[in-house]
Amino acid sequence: MSKSTNPKYLDISKEIIRRIESGELHPGDKVPSENELIKTYKISNTTARKSLLEVEINGWVSRVKGKGTFVLNRFQDKYLTRVLGSFEAIKESFNDNLIKEGFAPKNLILEKTIIENGISSNINGRHYIVEGPVLKIHRLRFADDMLLKDETRYISMKICPKINMLDLEQPLLKIYEEKYQLELNEVQRTLGTQILYPGEPGNFFENEMPLAVFVLDGAIFTSEGKIVELEKSYYRGDKYKFSVSAKPQLLKK
Amino acid sequence: MSKSTNPKYLDISKEIIRRIESGELHPGDKVPSENELIKTYKISNTTARKSLLEVEINGWVSRVKGKGTFVLNRFQDKYLTRVLGSFEAIKESFNDNLIKEGFAPKNLILEKTIIENGISSNINGRHYIVEGPVLKIHRLRFADDMLLKDETRYISMKICPKINMLDLEQPLLKIYEEKYQLELNEVQRTLGTQILYPGEPGNFFENEMPLAVFVLDGAIFTSEGKIVELEKSYYRGDKYKFSVSAKPQLLKK
Repeated sequence: MSKSTNPKYLDISKEIIRRIESGELHPGDKVPSENELIKTYKISNTTARKSLLEVEINGWVSRVKGKGTFVLNRFQDKYLTRVLGSFEAIKESFNDNLIKEGFAPKNLILEKTIIENGISSNINGRHYIVEGPVLKIHRLRFADDMLLKDETRYISMKICPKINMLDLEQPLLKIYEEKYQLELNEVQRTLGTQILYPGEPGNFFENEMPLAVFVLDGAIFTSEGKIVELEKSYYRGDKYKFSVSAKPQLLKK
Repeated sequence: MSKSTNPKYLDISKEIIRRIESGELHPGDKVPSENELIKTYKISNTTARKSLLEVEINGWVSRVKGKGTFVLNRFQDKYLTRVLGSFEAIKESFNDNLIKEGFAPKNLILEKTIIENGISSNINGRHYIVEGPVLKIHRLRFADDMLLKDETRYISMKICPKINMLDLEQPLLKIYEEKYQLELNEVQRTLGTQILYPGEPGNFFENEMPLAVFVLDGAIFTSEGKIVELEKSYYRGDKYKFSVSAKPQLLKK
């Protein structure tokens, strides 16, 4: 039924993608039609169809019924997708992520204070409390001068003494693990959504229209069940999506 | 430093929670203060403080500075939290979930049609296509007469022939696994957010104010990498939160 070992349609799709990546084909350009591919590569119409489908599946082009297949604008309406449920993904720095995606990141620290009393948060239906002293860092995270994330973190200074003295531009998870030798056991996150209206107090997004934002509440736990950090952040809903992949647990504990 | 084996403060917190659960203490009622607990149970002020903290951590009460500790209204402003990233949680039926949470679920099927052409969707930055025929089911999911979820599923009838003839009130994942003996390998989901305005075409939520909704795009894959189902659903953002827990991967493949 099916051919294996480097099928022809894959080679052709890769060639088309190469032409888009190199800039030979621009956003909005028409890519070769099925008939043109059949002529050029002496292939069947099934192979031609599969070639274009593969390029489409990979998100490079879009078919418009009766008009042809067009190169997509990779930057227009592009969402930054963040993986949830992966400890490894959480470790990556916000800035590195943006640089990878072709943006110039910029941070603005609005507040960096030590709170002597503890603070509390409601995550996944449970109420969590971190005893003081706690380092509060409130940062605005920009990409190409657009505010993407309004982030507040509360770090236990009982567990991480003097953390206020460190360079906190690095991923904080790395600091907890490497500088404080903490064995981190779990990250709990809850995503809500709300509307921020222009000019609302505490809204730093400078949106001119009502803006749907994601509200992320997070907690990071040590292997002893203690909370190292609580986070409360707002992500622009018109720029971000959150993704998660679930697989069946083959091994039951 | 710390006592083990059934600490006193836990016994006391359980007693307070029991009084709330039984209805002896109502939402808005003041629970005993630290001083009252000290007198009643002949305990230290540390133990009294920890008892109230435990009840608060469990989400039953809230402290108001200088006023006391009050029983929370468990139903007002309560969010329905859905676990992402768990295959097992996805298997649970929408209705059963609501019943568990004390609601009366109701469904309204708006559309149930067979689409001869395939359909496509963009999930986690990839473009997915399901070849036809595809069963489209568009359902409105209510709890206590409030629309919570506007759900559209596209099911491959190549993989699940005659699925339109089955009772689709059961969890669909169960049907795929049990009736069609499919080995499901992965569920991919992307969460976006947008604002639905009152009276907007396609908005079934009957909101009188702008409403932030979650937009869920999902795909379910068989072990052969084929897509059984694509989903596009809208959840009321003022009623739902999504949660996810990440643990470090101890075993690397």
